[in-house]
Amino acid sequence: MLSVDEARARILAGLHPTPAEVVPLAEAWGRVASVPVIARLHQPPADVSAMDGYSLRAEDGALGARLRVVGAAPAGHPWRGTVGPGEAVRLFTGSFLPAGADTVLLQEDATEADGILTVNEATHPGRHIRRAGQDFSAGDVLIRAGKRLSVRDIGLAASGNHPWLAVHRRPRVAILATGDEIALPGEPIPPGGIVSSNAHALAAFVRAWGGEPIVLPIAMDTLEAIAAGADAARGADILVTTGGASVGAHDLVREGLGARGLALDFWKIAMRPGKPLMFGRVGDLPLLGLPGNPVSAVVCAVLFLGPMLERLSGLPGAPPPRTRAVLAAALPANDHRADHLRARLRAESDGTLYATAFERQDSAMMAVLASADGLILRAPHAPAAAAGEAVEVIRLDTLGV
Amino acid sequence: MLSVDEARARILAGLHPTPAEVVPLAEAWGRVASVPVIARLHQPPADVSAMDGYSLRAEDGALGARLRVVGAAPAGHPWRGTVGPGEAVRLFTGSFLPAGADTVLLQEDATEADGILTVNEATHPGRHIRRAGQDFSAGDVLIRAGKRLSVRDIGLAASGNHPWLAVHRRPRVAILATGDEIALPGEPIPPGGIVSSNAHALAAFVRAWGGEPIVLPIAMDTLEAIAAGADAARGADILVTTGGASVGAHDLVREGLGARGLALDFWKIAMRPGKPLMFGRVGDLPLLGLPGNPVSAVVCAVLFLGPMLERLSGLPGAPPPRTRAVLAAALPANDHRADHLRARLRAESDGTLYATAFERQDSAMMAVLASADGLILRAPHAPAAAAGEAVEVIRLDTLGV
Repeated sequence: MLSVDEARARILAGLHPTPAEVVPLAEAWGRVASVPVIARLHQPPADVSAMDGYSLRAEDGALGARLRVVGAAPAGHPWRGTVGPGEAVRLFTGSFLPAGADTVLLQEDATEADGILTVNEATHPGRHIRRAGQDFSAGDVLIRAGKRLSVRDIGLAASGNHPWLAVHRRPRVAILATGDEIALPGEPIPPGGIVSSNAHALAAFVRAWGGEPIVLPIAMDTLEAIAAGADAARGADILVTTGGASVGAHDLVREGLGARGLALDFWKIAMRPGKPLMFGRVGDLPLLGLPGNPVSAVVCAVLFLGPMLERLSGLPGAPPPRTRAVLAAALPANDHRADHLRARLRAESDGTLYATAFERQDSAMMAVLASADGLILRAPHAPAAAAGEAVEVIRLDTLGV
Repeated sequence: MLSVDEARARILAGLHPTPAEVVPLAEAWGRVASVPVIARLHQPPADVSAMDGYSLRAEDGALGARLRVVGAAPAGHPWRGTVGPGEAVRLFTGSFLPAGADTVLLQEDATEADGILTVNEATHPGRHIRRAGQDFSAGDVLIRAGKRLSVRDIGLAASGNHPWLAVHRRPRVAILATGDEIALPGEPIPPGGIVSSNAHALAAFVRAWGGEPIVLPIAMDTLEAIAAGADAARGADILVTTGGASVGAHDLVREGLGARGLALDFWKIAMRPGKPLMFGRVGDLPLLGLPGNPVSAVVCAVLFLGPMLERLSGLPGAPPPRTRAVLAAALPANDHRADHLRARLRAESDGTLYATAFERQDSAMMAVLASADGLILRAPHAPAAAAGEAVEVIRLDTLGV
């Protein structure tokens, strides 16, 4: 059996970022830049006033000096003349500095009456001026390729005069739930059947990671139905299957996809929940075969599908972020499989995070999983751990999972 | 001047969750449940096998016993008969337990040949059975009202047989950028003008918080244009204005909206960046007037607009989450305004987060803001702080901001 890290590395090795598409700036939040975003102009575009006040020649701004106010430059209305000796021009934050002037006198350091300005605080050259290009210059890299665009990046790209941005296409993930026993919510439930929850939980996961889910109709447990599912997934970037509960289901998926040229890479990983994970390719299409039980499906999505989506989106595809926590209750020794214990997390006022594993770790217990704040990571063969020992956790609460 | 906390409390006090709408389960991720989601069935629906194996009467399962295999119950095909003395029925994980049987013998603890099963490990009543309703029962609250729906909640709602979910309508936020000097990216830039970045950064923020942005055309610096902006915002849940750079801009917004009945609550907050924040109502429409400079606009969005969007979405509207960090470099004493220093954060391998404030805190520096990982919080009148002291930070990197 493979380790979780080996499995993830092998899965990611064969994945490449999706090609680029152009989207309006207004729809680019959360997308990943496919090329660097380069500033198309200087910011500020010229020397501008950093404050409300008056521009003048610094040599004219001795304490008590009196100057003629010869104009005003509100935002968007620059003053076109040249400030001469004994002259001042009214400015506001962001106003372009007029020619001739080399300093800004704050309005609170001056008195204006009948067009005459009295200097109440001596000026110095260059005060309260933001220089052209001080924020950035034309040609500067504002955003590097491969960065997920944040709110601030959208603002920065706008300032750099980009109405459109080139981003990686959203990864398309075809999701195929299989099983004679499952029904979509609200539809007639077959005898001995249950309502299918995996397909839509996985679709939500794909959305949460910035992908585009394609939920295929449920495939019955026949080779033909499963092969037809692979056909329906054409054009997707990943096919995710989620098996029925029966022992034969994975073999069935394997055999059904085999009719469409499945090349299997591996399908057992030393982990819990989720051991019978399958990875391979159907033609060019990467296949991730998830266990049918809902807890394993979600945990495997966090460990494998998330990094796959990130890699396809143009990001490195790192393992899910880990946080330090302190055990609030002891844990027994672990066996040879990496465990992911559903746990409650509680932050103390000093910032320490305490983790308590749930008593029941049954991988069919969706309600327990849904109430967990995170997963305590237990390495293979980890010895028993006492309350107070440090552990690593994957937070689910802050991931939107 | 008001404190940040007082201002936020006064803003939130007048906001109420949006009304409910019904959305398909497949589109409900990230939305906030407006009523509890109640299980419509038991999960599992009946007593089911937790493993692959054979169901039988425990009293028949002594070591070495030989039983007749009288049927099989693959997933979705329950066995309709009653298991009698000396009989066994093949089961798989999730198969309904047939009548008469009261235990499951693991397949690895049995040998089957020619329809005869040999017991290699004695059985006990009730082993490897998941009871009906063990995960949840019909009538259980699966998801409480006011919870933002996670991936796991979508799975849970599906298992509970909900094809539709009632959620709060996305808050609609009308965004009005004002100023003679600004142009949308890619459009002709007026003389002395700059490219508008606030409107689309704020729109991205609204999306990141689950709202629906409505970016209004830029309003020129006239009372009529600003009043027309208020008219165009009708039907929105919040109107956000972002002023030009000139000193008069806020007065202009106030006067322009005054013509549409603006009732001003407050408009100065003891904070930096972002002092000239305005809050009030235009008729029924809450108004948040943000400073024109891009850094203040984003910081004020994090501090005020985010909680407003959460409150409208049916969540409590908590302040942005704070994290402990350690100063990597000393900070001077603070003045009377709460400061939000743009900073780099670096996590050490022991999990400690180190924070270094940028040298330049100019609130017009969008590139500096975009490269910040978080904001160091400095209380009013905070004394100088040495490297190694603990501070609180608002992480921007993990918020999508």
